Amino acid sequence: MTETEATSAAGRRGRRGRGAAGGAEARRAQRGGTAAPKSGHITRRIPYYEILRDEDLVLIEQNAETVLEEIGIEFRDDAEALQLWKDAGAEVDGERVRMPRGLCRELCKTIPSEFTQHARNPARSVQIGGGSTVFAPVYGPPFVRDLDQGRRYATLEDFQNFVKLAYTAPAIHHSGGTVCEPVDVPVNKRHLDMVYSHMRYSDLPFMGSVTAPERAEDTVAMAKILFGEEFVENNTVLVSLINANSPMTFDGTMLGALKVYARHNQACIVTPFILAGAMSPVTAVGTMTQTLAEALAGLAFSQLVRPGAPMILGSFASSISMQSGAPTFGTPEPALVLYGMAQLARRLSVPFRSGGSLCGSKAADAQAAHESSQTLLPTVLGGVNFVLHSAGWLEGGLVSSYEKFVIDADQLGMMQVLCNGYDLTENGQAMDALREVGPGSHFLGCAHTQANFETAFYRSSVADNNSYEQWEAEGAQDTAQLANKLWKQRLRDYEAPALDPGIDEALKEFIQKKKDSMPDAFT
Amino acid sequence: MTETEATSAAGRRGRRGRGAAGGAEARRAQRGGTAAPKSGHITRRIPYYEILRDEDLVLIEQNAETVLEEIGIEFRDDAEALQLWKDAGAEVDGERVRMPRGLCRELCKTIPSEFTQHARNPARSVQIGGGSTVFAPVYGPPFVRDLDQGRRYATLEDFQNFVKLAYTAPAIHHSGGTVCEPVDVPVNKRHLDMVYSHMRYSDLPFMGSVTAPERAEDTVAMAKILFGEEFVENNTVLVSLINANSPMTFDGTMLGALKVYARHNQACIVTPFILAGAMSPVTAVGTMTQTLAEALAGLAFSQLVRPGAPMILGSFASSISMQSGAPTFGTPEPALVLYGMAQLARRLSVPFRSGGSLCGSKAADAQAAHESSQTLLPTVLGGVNFVLHSAGWLEGGLVSSYEKFVIDADQLGMMQVLCNGYDLTENGQAMDALREVGPGSHFLGCAHTQANFETAFYRSSVADNNSYEQWEAEGAQDTAQLANKLWKQRLRDYEAPALDPGIDEALKEFIQKKKDSMPDAFT
Repeated sequence: MTETEATSAAGRRGRRGRGAAGGAEARRAQRGGTAAPKSGHITRRIPYYEILRDEDLVLIEQNAETVLEEIGIEFRDDAEALQLWKDAGAEVDGERVRMPRGLCRELCKTIPSEFTQHARNPARSVQIGGGSTVFAPVYGPPFVRDLDQGRRYATLEDFQNFVKLAYTAPAIHHSGGTVCEPVDVPVNKRHLDMVYSHMRYSDLPFMGSVTAPERAEDTVAMAKILFGEEFVENNTVLVSLINANSPMTFDGTMLGALKVYARHNQACIVTPFILAGAMSPVTAVGTMTQTLAEALAGLAFSQLVRPGAPMILGSFASSISMQSGAPTFGTPEPALVLYGMAQLARRLSVPFRSGGSLCGSKAADAQAAHESSQTLLPTVLGGVNFVLHSAGWLEGGLVSSYEKFVIDADQLGMMQVLCNGYDLTENGQAMDALREVGPGSHFLGCAHTQANFETAFYRSSVADNNSYEQWEAEGAQDTAQLANKLWKQRLRDYEAPALDPGIDEALKEFIQKKKDSMPDAFT
Repeated sequence: MTETEATSAAGRRGRRGRGAAGGAEARRAQRGGTAAPKSGHITRRIPYYEILRDEDLVLIEQNAETVLEEIGIEFRDDAEALQLWKDAGAEVDGERVRMPRGLCRELCKTIPSEFTQHARNPARSVQIGGGSTVFAPVYGPPFVRDLDQGRRYATLEDFQNFVKLAYTAPAIHHSGGTVCEPVDVPVNKRHLDMVYSHMRYSDLPFMGSVTAPERAEDTVAMAKILFGEEFVENNTVLVSLINANSPMTFDGTMLGALKVYARHNQACIVTPFILAGAMSPVTAVGTMTQTLAEALAGLAFSQLVRPGAPMILGSFASSISMQSGAPTFGTPEPALVLYGMAQLARRLSVPFRSGGSLCGSKAADAQAAHESSQTLLPTVLGGVNFVLHSAGWLEGGLVSSYEKFVIDADQLGMMQVLCNGYDLTENGQAMDALREVGPGSHFLGCAHTQANFETAFYRSSVADNNSYEQWEAEGAQDTAQLANKLWKQRLRDYEAPALDPGIDEALKEFIQKKKDSMPDAFT
């Protein structure tokens, strides 16, 4: 779908089932919340950085086909999946599925090369695939950390705080999913509060629950209340995260959630989540081979469930410390895997997810920053379409960090500028300025500088660019201390985007009914 | 010169003037110091990241020619320079020199596209240009900083410490020049101690003094003592830093030093040092146009002095805070200038210097790390040949930081691995590992992992990859605190490389005689 088509699809939402929505949308457009101006997503104007040659890529693709044909992939605890594979011509041996060469690649041809994920605010809808890049927050941590209270288990309040911080960050395009795991809410009910928080405290697109097929169904049901039933059946409003159990295994829970979303024409990211050396070979090419094989199997399976369902090829690969086994980030090896997988995904014509602002550090310090930048820049240059973990990820994904969230978000703003590339217009060439100033003078006051200075350079919200003397006088605070003030200010300034009261009421009713229908479970 | 030629040139050094040297070299090879194993320089096996198209580059080149032709460049306080330009066909008006279109580019054709800078230890000689990358430390700061004593004026002891830290860092290939400014030594004599420190405490290649023509002559004289007179006349043993006074001006001091080095066939980096918005237009393309014009003028001038003298095209460009005027680093705009200038330098077939681990932060914190990585990765991907400021740069270049030096040096090690690209051999493909392990198991114990784990992943010397619990138990130290221990340990472990006692004596004599010949001057 082109961007024009995406815009008009968003426009059609006025015609959806729920009568009140059209009016609510019109009011919302006038009232708004405190979301910073956002572009929806990044449309890159810079080339991809590609290291591998075509013949290298063909070699890896052939090796991946060999994995699928000779070794196969296990589809566990899902008889339906095995039957679908059998019907498609695969060799099924117990739960092991061996795919004839080329079968998965052929099945993947029905995956859209790009699609729109709609937000309840049409201006926030994002394009996923092609030359677009979407930044989404950290996903999954059971802990949170801030400078005041240190590291602790995450709560629903933390969850809502991170939704709000993403909403107010100019360069974050997506509300994400499990921005942290609210462990104060029963396991079997928390998905309801999580999905509601994304719907209520943000108007960005968001992700659905994948921890059980029935929770995926709940997510779709809530999306239908928010967007209207017909709109959800005809458009993608959810992107959800399906991880392979590497090596070469998909489990019943993930398959169940994947089937729910695919049948509703909602998108999933099929991601082999790999700590290389433990869950894949220690080499970059070996890890890419396995990642491609697993992703091909998962993506192809989605098309057996519903041909044409929107899907994203995911790759998560870290290196590990061969001494302690701990995952390590920001090292060159995962960057090489990312660059290569981006090339492989483009050859498959499917949207690609990888990277982020990953780190293994326990604090928002120099290690965290180096590792994050050394992941984020490959993410952008390599051409990732959907960037999970783009802000807030700390300690190998165990922790959502408040300070790191705003530090990372600032870097995302820089990436947005980088993707714009060069201004080669007459104004960009600045020959008038050069002629006006000449040798030995300065450009601060010249007409060209005056006309351009407000937008000429990226203005960091985090970096301290004061003099040493001023910095000392203000307490010689490091980046984490400055960021601590920033996230608190943003939460104080936060105002929720408007939500139609009828929809809000219907969502709350749905949640209450679901919660009342079962006892709390904490495991 | 190819790498083979470089090696044999280094071998010829046994035949140089000073009789004792051959034997000293042989002994040194056996005794060595505590330098980590180094490769001499990086030979990249990954492509350049190039954003601009050929037609964009031609446009910028044409604009630069317009600057040279219409506006011109000032060559101040140097009558000889003006005469050389006049003789070459330029239009000289006072100190303003206007060059006919294409003249500078034509003159630059005699600059070698790559050359070897010889180190006194032939194994440490570096190739500059082509697909090579050389990392050199920070240059110029009057202050140093460490966690124990904070920020203070630099001393000769600090200078020697940074020389030692570069010598012991596995991924630093070059000893640099003014690793900090030893302000405890008189201004008119400190170049002698600085040059001696590089010669005595390291066996890496180094840079010469540029603060006055006679100090450049002293540097050459000392190099002749170290390398032998004939060797210096026939080989490049010095690379020195000549900055333009942007916009569009060269001063007499820099021109004087440039002439000295060029006449001795020693290399210079001709660098327009630009804070964009103050010393150049606020746009990337305008800054590149001016940088190219200034560099072309300086490089062409060097070839008027001595055709064939080895030269490096330099580009230093930061953005500035349009509020405070402070330079800012690690933002997207300087990265765009770097990528573009690298392309322009390659079209000119001259070696290129830019980038480093630049930052504006006052501490070795997350800001410092983000800004450094966001400079260093473009440096490497863009294809910089000579990387000044690759370690230790803090606070916009006002401070050499002990902690940041070792943190940066660790990142340089990662860049070395990145530049190796992919292992596409059978071992790299790891199909045996995939077959051996299969679905649902793990790779930790498999034969392929066992055979490769020691070299599979970059091992950071700085990053803490321990568990949260262990990190807490060890005091929850951040990266700067860990780095503080590391640089102290490296200085404790340091052993000087052997130096022929006769040469050492001769150097000391030369220095004493020079020092005795003039009164101390502190301005």
